[in-house]
Amino acid sequence: MTESENWVVAFADADETQRSLLGGKGAGLAGMTKAGLPVPPGFTITTEACRAYYDAGRTMPDGLWEQIEAAIEALEAATGKVFGGDEDPLLVSVRSGAVFSMPGMMDTVLNLGLNPTSTAGLAAATDDEAFAWDAYRRLVQMYGEIVLGIDGSRLHEPNEHDRVDGQAAVRRLQTIARDQSGSRVPEDPRKQLRRAVAAVFDSWMGRRAIDYRSMEGIPDDLFTAVNVQAMVYGNTGPNSGTGVVFTRNPATGEAGLWGEYLPDAQGEDVVAGLRTPEPIAELAVRHPEVHERLVELTDQLEQTYRDMQDVEFTVERGKLWMLQTRAAKRTGRGAIRCAVEMANEGLINRQEAVGRVTPDRLEELLHPVVEPDDDTVTLVTGLAASPGGASGMVAFTADEAVALTEAGNDVILVRTETSPDDFHGMVAAQAVVTSRGGVTSHAAVVARGMGKCCVVGCEGMTVDYGEQLFRTPTAVVTAGDVITVDGTSGTVYAGLVPTAEPELDEDYETLMDWVDGVKRLDVRANADNPADAAAAHRLGARGIGLCRTEHMFFEGERIEEMRRMIMAPNTVARAEALAELEPHQTADFEALFTEMAGLPVTIRLLDPPLHEFLPSRSEVAETLTDLKLRLSGTGNLAEIDHILHEINEQQEILDQVERLSESNPMLGHRGCRLGVDYPEITAMQARAIFTAAVHCAEKGIDAHPEVMVPLVAFAAEFRQQRDIIRATAAEVFDDAGVEVPYHIGTMIELPRAALTADEICADAEFVSFGTNDLTQTALGLSRDDSSRFLPSYVRAGIIDGDPFQHLDEAGVGALVEIGTTKSRSVNPDLTVGVCGEHGGDPASIQFINGLAIDYISCSPYRVPIARLSAAHATLEHEAASTA
Amino acid sequence: MTESENWVVAFADADETQRSLLGGKGAGLAGMTKAGLPVPPGFTITTEACRAYYDAGRTMPDGLWEQIEAAIEALEAATGKVFGGDEDPLLVSVRSGAVFSMPGMMDTVLNLGLNPTSTAGLAAATDDEAFAWDAYRRLVQMYGEIVLGIDGSRLHEPNEHDRVDGQAAVRRLQTIARDQSGSRVPEDPRKQLRRAVAAVFDSWMGRRAIDYRSMEGIPDDLFTAVNVQAMVYGNTGPNSGTGVVFTRNPATGEAGLWGEYLPDAQGEDVVAGLRTPEPIAELAVRHPEVHERLVELTDQLEQTYRDMQDVEFTVERGKLWMLQTRAAKRTGRGAIRCAVEMANEGLINRQEAVGRVTPDRLEELLHPVVEPDDDTVTLVTGLAASPGGASGMVAFTADEAVALTEAGNDVILVRTETSPDDFHGMVAAQAVVTSRGGVTSHAAVVARGMGKCCVVGCEGMTVDYGEQLFRTPTAVVTAGDVITVDGTSGTVYAGLVPTAEPELDEDYETLMDWVDGVKRLDVRANADNPADAAAAHRLGARGIGLCRTEHMFFEGERIEEMRRMIMAPNTVARAEALAELEPHQTADFEALFTEMAGLPVTIRLLDPPLHEFLPSRSEVAETLTDLKLRLSGTGNLAEIDHILHEINEQQEILDQVERLSESNPMLGHRGCRLGVDYPEITAMQARAIFTAAVHCAEKGIDAHPEVMVPLVAFAAEFRQQRDIIRATAAEVFDDAGVEVPYHIGTMIELPRAALTADEICADAEFVSFGTNDLTQTALGLSRDDSSRFLPSYVRAGIIDGDPFQHLDEAGVGALVEIGTTKSRSVNPDLTVGVCGEHGGDPASIQFINGLAIDYISCSPYRVPIARLSAAHATLEHEAASTA
Repeated sequence: MTESENWVVAFADADETQRSLLGGKGAGLAGMTKAGLPVPPGFTITTEACRAYYDAGRTMPDGLWEQIEAAIEALEAATGKVFGGDEDPLLVSVRSGAVFSMPGMMDTVLNLGLNPTSTAGLAAATDDEAFAWDAYRRLVQMYGEIVLGIDGSRLHEPNEHDRVDGQAAVRRLQTIARDQSGSRVPEDPRKQLRRAVAAVFDSWMGRRAIDYRSMEGIPDDLFTAVNVQAMVYGNTGPNSGTGVVFTRNPATGEAGLWGEYLPDAQGEDVVAGLRTPEPIAELAVRHPEVHERLVELTDQLEQTYRDMQDVEFTVERGKLWMLQTRAAKRTGRGAIRCAVEMANEGLINRQEAVGRVTPDRLEELLHPVVEPDDDTVTLVTGLAASPGGASGMVAFTADEAVALTEAGNDVILVRTETSPDDFHGMVAAQAVVTSRGGVTSHAAVVARGMGKCCVVGCEGMTVDYGEQLFRTPTAVVTAGDVITVDGTSGTVYAGLVPTAEPELDEDYETLMDWVDGVKRLDVRANADNPADAAAAHRLGARGIGLCRTEHMFFEGERIEEMRRMIMAPNTVARAEALAELEPHQTADFEALFTEMAGLPVTIRLLDPPLHEFLPSRSEVAETLTDLKLRLSGTGNLAEIDHILHEINEQQEILDQVERLSESNPMLGHRGCRLGVDYPEITAMQARAIFTAAVHCAEKGIDAHPEVMVPLVAFAAEFRQQRDIIRATAAEVFDDAGVEVPYHIGTMIELPRAALTADEICADAEFVSFGTNDLTQTALGLSRDDSSRFLPSYVRAGIIDGDPFQHLDEAGVGALVEIGTTKSRSVNPDLTVGVCGEHGGDPASIQFINGLAIDYISCSPYRVPIARLSAAHATLEHEAASTA
Repeated sequence: MTESENWVVAFADADETQRSLLGGKGAGLAGMTKAGLPVPPGFTITTEACRAYYDAGRTMPDGLWEQIEAAIEALEAATGKVFGGDEDPLLVSVRSGAVFSMPGMMDTVLNLGLNPTSTAGLAAATDDEAFAWDAYRRLVQMYGEIVLGIDGSRLHEPNEHDRVDGQAAVRRLQTIARDQSGSRVPEDPRKQLRRAVAAVFDSWMGRRAIDYRSMEGIPDDLFTAVNVQAMVYGNTGPNSGTGVVFTRNPATGEAGLWGEYLPDAQGEDVVAGLRTPEPIAELAVRHPEVHERLVELTDQLEQTYRDMQDVEFTVERGKLWMLQTRAAKRTGRGAIRCAVEMANEGLINRQEAVGRVTPDRLEELLHPVVEPDDDTVTLVTGLAASPGGASGMVAFTADEAVALTEAGNDVILVRTETSPDDFHGMVAAQAVVTSRGGVTSHAAVVARGMGKCCVVGCEGMTVDYGEQLFRTPTAVVTAGDVITVDGTSGTVYAGLVPTAEPELDEDYETLMDWVDGVKRLDVRANADNPADAAAAHRLGARGIGLCRTEHMFFEGERIEEMRRMIMAPNTVARAEALAELEPHQTADFEALFTEMAGLPVTIRLLDPPLHEFLPSRSEVAETLTDLKLRLSGTGNLAEIDHILHEINEQQEILDQVERLSESNPMLGHRGCRLGVDYPEITAMQARAIFTAAVHCAEKGIDAHPEVMVPLVAFAAEFRQQRDIIRATAAEVFDDAGVEVPYHIGTMIELPRAALTADEICADAEFVSFGTNDLTQTALGLSRDDSSRFLPSYVRAGIIDGDPFQHLDEAGVGALVEIGTTKSRSVNPDLTVGVCGEHGGDPASIQFINGLAIDYISCSPYRVPIARLSAAHATLEHEAASTA
């Protein structure tokens, strides 16, 4: 922060490894310059300069401007041109360059140095007056919007790209600028530059940028660098153009150059999606030598950076200029294939390959696939910008998308094109559809970055914001209508189209094999039925970590039997009802054991309060009203008797519903409290478990039942339930003449249980942390109720994120750690697991990996994510311990 | 446990300080014998013998019987009589004697040694055949019931005390014994003794004894001693008798002998309440020399034991025998006067005086006093056996009393007399009334022991168990009717009679001064209104530790304003409604500051979820139905408009009720979560607090506001609320030109808050543990719902007691300790308090005293209990650290 600091460094002089100082773009430009690639000369104003700018209260710190002026002079010397000079002037771009890519979030100003005289000079030098004035028009528009802060819509007009009388356009725009902001674009090139640099610095703290960083978890104090670079022009005729290419296909990972080229255009035109570019292969036709050179240079870049690159280039009158290179954002499928192939090519090793695929990229792969049938109506097709499938209500604005989502709906955001202002709507939406733009347009890049399904450039589709509808050649869809988007095929369907599980390819299997070779934590699944168990098994689960038995009681006639059990006036009647439920449970468990043969199946005893199995109070009240109305309408004695009988029955149910109703069911008569009060329920479930295990043993199937006692707060609860389970096991095995090994354990989901885990787990064979309930109790936060105020808490920065998604490390995490340490202190051989939703959350898994936990258990479709996250956690742990 | 152990020791040889070996009774007998008092000779079989008996599987361990036989031989030698001999036989009693007194819980067999021939010998020696056979009858009855286990009711018959043909009675009883148990009472005296000793050992593990110990917290492994003592007889004519006296009045503490004497009776007759004895003063008339000797001996005992004694004696043909001495159970008033006077007499020091009054004794003093008025109907009067006042529904059996209590009712247990079988009913009841018995009857002794209001010996009252009613000369009261009992005056009233606060006398004030001199913890009160604050102040609270501001919103028109606030469609409307509430709050706070001038007043910001202030769903629904019915019945257009308007209003309320309804309100949108979402509520409350403080300052009143932010889970919540409070304070002080010192602190009532107290309390000036909510969240136990299953948990021994009454040390206590340690680690000057109900519970206070807590806060009427408990905790801490 002292004057002597080097805040400005030429691309040619910069150390490309100093990414946090130069920003991503600056480092890329420095690296390419050093590697001898054709890069327009320029310099980077470092992130430290930006920090100093903010430290000085948003003013240039002493000495910074002097350094910039010196760098401009050096640039003039290198190019042999004068900045904003009268003849063939040196013009520059000013672009932000943060450490982490924030596509479209930050500001850019091009063509700095133009004014009436230098524009004339440019016209003369290029022999193209229209081009020159068009460039000046663009400068006034960008500068007006970004530096003067004028609403962009006031500065754009239809047909502005037709280059008709650019000079008049500039005049008009300068008048608008003065009217709107009290200033015009200054004519002094240095004033332009100085203000543009400050504006880019300011954009770091713009609303869009702050929101984006908050979502991506990028710290605010990294700051941005600013790159000042000599302009090159792709919009100087058919011999010119601009493009964005990836060294491999970022959607599929397929090797080979992939991207787009827009002839006679500037790069901003591609990003803005104003015109639809052509595939890069076309460049090979138009300019084979340029294409060949591009292939050569991008290959070199991939070898240098050992990763897939996303490259921006411009062709100015046949000359290829490289403007940016960075690691390419990619889809899940793209990431996996790329990682596996690069490892196979020897470019990276297998651990690096595992590290290259992030959990959220892998997650996309597991997204459902849209399965249209003969009756499915296709609305429109476009470019498959980001794969996956999603259905939802149509929303035309970002705010509407957010509002509908907060009201609990799935939403599809439909726009002509998207801009950074739509970012919050894209976060909220399930998928994004645009009528314009290509696969590198804002919508496409951002959606891919979020792993969100996206279709862009839908030809024949028009969006009418005023009428709140969009039209396709065959249909009109209004706001609120449901559509289905297939980002893999690029199709938009009417209504809700069913989806199916994705096929997982060989690259996936290869990578996941490497993943399993790396990770320390075992991964099990939360599964309550054979279908889920099969899916979990297929996705690599090493057993079931949580089978919620109550889910089995809701199906078909079972709910009736369950209600009979709850309505039972005494132990005998209850035992009878339980006896009817038992064979169902036995069959359920047998199917699970069979599916998970050889692997542990952890079965949690009945957990929810009994009133959850009864109809709601209002339901019964309605039935009663109906019955009474029927009674008033009949004169038939037999029917009257029948109705009276039914009324009596319903009245009894209503009484029981009221008796069982609780102020705070979450903290009520549930978990093992049920088993303590009704030991016959525990005994029935245990009998079903062990009978199923015996059946399996008789068929030669290797069943591993683990019986889990839920919501234990006191050691005596666990012991009492354990004794019932043991006694039942002995009975069943005795009757059958067969013994099956089993384990009895408990669940820690109350703070008291964690704090007294040494008492509770002294006699347990395993213990599993139920971090969902532990979050509810540790934070005093009802999951059902908190969604009303948690979002405002996250927005206000009071909490980092939803604690039901990401484990609260300081509170819940501390309890898990205390519980693990205490339980192992008395029982070193105890198996310890985590079976809350957090078992499928990458950040939480990283935390859990740091504790002495043996396994995590998550929903079946999160199993691969959990495996990968566990592997990443191990890699990071190893990196940290060797560092 | 080896044969060589000394299991049997003569009273004359025993070391009276070995209380745990000899039991209370044995130690007393040994002490009296050593002091030269007239004690019938005998010996004690030690608690170690009882332990060995249980260790040997409920059989006499090797050598024990031989030691007993040797002791009997020594007794024969000392008395010059033969045990069960033919002439003037030696007869003995066998009485249990546990370490802690368990009145009536354990068994006794008298007159051992009688059989047909020794009875004849006794008849000859006493020249009273009727007496001798009556003694034999009593032996058969007691032996039959206690040793043979025959239902007592089968062994008793009307008029059995009339001594008509005792011989025939013995014959009949022996036949019943054989029919019921297969055995008769053996004739061999040694067999009788051996079995009686075993039976007393067995009674240690009887249901009644186990229940009693569980309630009183007496460990099961202390075991009981057994005392074998030569019989003396109070039922040998008008020159004989038996009595129980206290060295001071146990109800009032007044010095001077107090008690009862029953001429021509055995001690068991007094305890059983079968005949009503006469006051001890009558003995001075009947036998002045015996009375004089009794006064002399009891004085000697009080000097020896340095405490009020409870003495049993028998007069056998004019000779005084001392049968038992022990520290007397006493009422609160008795305990205090006795302690203060003994300290003033120099018998004990002031710390001992403080230690002599237990918190539950003190609690009685604070019980309400019955205040009958002219319309109050007196049902009956009896003996004032245990002071206090209580109202409740009449129950005639212990089981019924328990059932009604568990259903949430206050109950008065009404019996002819009580027996140990009624114990659980007495525990459940608010008060006990018996038609028979004196102030030392079972009912009286046990009720006093529990600090429960009790009236006994109600002349003219008959209890009809069959009809489930009791009759008095003027009324019939049936089960379920409400009556009011005044144990201070000995009156039973019809219906619910109002009660008032007790007057606290000079002895109380003296003792409490000594208490305050001993204790370390400060005691504050939970008070929300000036009346409670005044009571708290009067009872010695050093400030308010918890003012729940929401209570202020329920009164009068305020609830309407509160509802307007909740129904406000936007911030402006909400601010308007809040502005109307503010002056009320200001006035409330001003009154509290005035009452607590010079002392801290801790004000908790709004805590409950807002829906608590709205009418219930069913209430609004009913109003709506009424309105609709009115609508259907009118033809008046103006009225229709009016009704429609009202319907709209109610519909809006219903909508809001539904919007705000929560699945688990305890874990919902409450506490500081309200203040975070509606900062204007926090600002309003803060403004009211500081405005009130300024008003006080202007009047010269020393206000000490402490603003407490509730339900904090995250440090950022506290900081955000603190900033609002600070800004508001600055505004108010600025406007007024007056500054009042204040503190801002927080409440720890969530496990996460305790675990992250170092973050949360870094900037707090005080912190208070809300152990009610902390218990709910740490244990996952809703206070509103758990009462349905907690009692069965306590019965099953899964938990020791209600964790909402006694702090759960392992869970909640651990969190309080963690929170205290963590918060002090960053903020050593932090003031730390506890403001849950536990702040008034003696056991919890003892635990809290062991942590680095500065103050406890409890309800106003618990303040003296808390002060005393805090003093006891300090004394115990000092005793432990000097031990």
